[in-house]
Amino acid sequence: MVSVAVIGSGAVGCYYGALLARAGHDVRFLMRRDLAAVRANGLDIRSHLGDFQLREVQAFAASEEIGPVDWVICSLKTTVLDDAERLVKPCLGRSSRILALMNGLGVEERLAAWAGPERVFGGMAFVCINRGAPGVVHHLKYGRLSLGHLGDDAAQTAELATLFAEAGAEVTAAPDLRHARWEKLCWNIPFNGLSVAAGGIGTQAIINDAALRTTAERAMREVIAAGNADLAARDSASRISEAEMVGRMFALTESMGDYRTSMAIDYVQGQPLEVETILGQPVRRALELGVATPTMDALYALVRAADLRLRGVIAALTLETL
Amino acid sequence: MVSVAVIGSGAVGCYYGALLARAGHDVRFLMRRDLAAVRANGLDIRSHLGDFQLREVQAFAASEEIGPVDWVICSLKTTVLDDAERLVKPCLGRSSRILALMNGLGVEERLAAWAGPERVFGGMAFVCINRGAPGVVHHLKYGRLSLGHLGDDAAQTAELATLFAEAGAEVTAAPDLRHARWEKLCWNIPFNGLSVAAGGIGTQAIINDAALRTTAERAMREVIAAGNADLAARDSASRISEAEMVGRMFALTESMGDYRTSMAIDYVQGQPLEVETILGQPVRRALELGVATPTMDALYALVRAADLRLRGVIAALTLETL
Repeated sequence: MVSVAVIGSGAVGCYYGALLARAGHDVRFLMRRDLAAVRANGLDIRSHLGDFQLREVQAFAASEEIGPVDWVICSLKTTVLDDAERLVKPCLGRSSRILALMNGLGVEERLAAWAGPERVFGGMAFVCINRGAPGVVHHLKYGRLSLGHLGDDAAQTAELATLFAEAGAEVTAAPDLRHARWEKLCWNIPFNGLSVAAGGIGTQAIINDAALRTTAERAMREVIAAGNADLAARDSASRISEAEMVGRMFALTESMGDYRTSMAIDYVQGQPLEVETILGQPVRRALELGVATPTMDALYALVRAADLRLRGVIAALTLETL
Repeated sequence: MVSVAVIGSGAVGCYYGALLARAGHDVRFLMRRDLAAVRANGLDIRSHLGDFQLREVQAFAASEEIGPVDWVICSLKTTVLDDAERLVKPCLGRSSRILALMNGLGVEERLAAWAGPERVFGGMAFVCINRGAPGVVHHLKYGRLSLGHLGDDAAQTAELATLFAEAGAEVTAAPDLRHARWEKLCWNIPFNGLSVAAGGIGTQAIINDAALRTTAERAMREVIAAGNADLAARDSASRISEAEMVGRMFALTESMGDYRTSMAIDYVQGQPLEVETILGQPVRRALELGVATPTMDALYALVRAADLRLRGVIAALTLETL
């Protein structure tokens, strides 16, 4: 049994934390929206792999109540990445390790800046999952976790992968975390980006429209070019195969139905968008590397504009202001 | 005195038609929304160059009532370009000529297909102008007309330019109509495009945001590249100077205040967008010419998606459907 703190209890944090708790680990959740409901009724996981309920859940309102643990799963929204240090630190003991289970590029580096790189891991959840009512998680499809260590320590990565695999998750131990991050961006940039830039639409509306689909594919090819340049610049031997990736990602998306991306859901709900880690960091890294990414750049500008509209920084025209 | 039919009495058609009527010409307007108001009260032009009213206006509900004239000003929205033949033909006599006072690329060619190329002219209005209440036009800024003949007949272009100049308009006789069309697209594609793709915003919100401004500039440079390739392919000697155009268009836009583009107004009002003539045709021409236009392509896909949302073809997600 290991002790685990889940910092940021959205759908992803709740689901993977619940798997570990079901497996008998000492899992403590930092919760906000769902705190009262989970304390009263536990967690209700409605999963295509089999529903399960946790009746007794350790749910806390502050990290200080959680205290030091073996593993911290940091599954905050990256829009509040600035809060990670304050929220994670109370859970760190001398040998604690941190799994950044978040979207986008550069999140492990941000944690490593104050936690030290040797104890930071990254996780990508390839999963269709949404929050339902407080205490309820809807796990719709897939569920694979790709896990890696910031220093690509294979033994430690295997240890973390085993923890999740024994709890019932489908896991891949990524030999190269940076490669795994870019792989996930191959989907997130085109589909999260377009789902918002096209006004809050599902994935099927993107792939069924020739012009949007072409834009998605072009953005994906730019991500692959930028990712491969980044890997080469870091002396990594691994590369993303363009033909394989594009074919696989579109086949995957075809199989999803009209999936609502996390960013489209945030957009429709008027919540801050994870625009900087999903789009801003990759665009800036491509610029540093001299890789032309005009489609990504346009998506970044437009999703950022959508975020600024949501925050009231840019005023959208209305019938009243015309 | 010449006889003139204005087919499509939006802000632009009403304004330039009103100038000609004020100068004593026999101007007959085909009207829909404003018909009753104009018949009752005439046209009320509120212009930064001086307000004027036309109390007696010849306003008609059908082209057949207008009959053959010397000049037809076709100032329809290009979303109803398919209706132009039906609406213009009743106004054509043997020597009638047609001025396509519309946005985008390929509109003269569409008219020429059934009217014959020798009698077709094109006009670009560089003007900030909106419709107000029925019968009222708000002319906010600028007002120059750039006029050309589809066959670049200089004598006929001069004749048309004189007609408008003597009526008080600022006029440029374009020696090369295609060149003039691309010049106008240098503004329309980035600013109409982004004003909608960014969710219905004004021009100042675009140029004050670094990422949107960069996207606008990149789109503009792509328009210039596509335009110059198109001109070269047509054995035209004229070219658009990239440095001069970019500098001039941004200085112009700075001077506009937070201008609402026609497409942004249509978007906010839920009206069909002129996406095919302003974005679709230029993008398709660039593709034929082998000119890479990734930013234009993305804007086309996204503005087209916005139009499809307005028409209910693509369903936007809502809080209810999440």
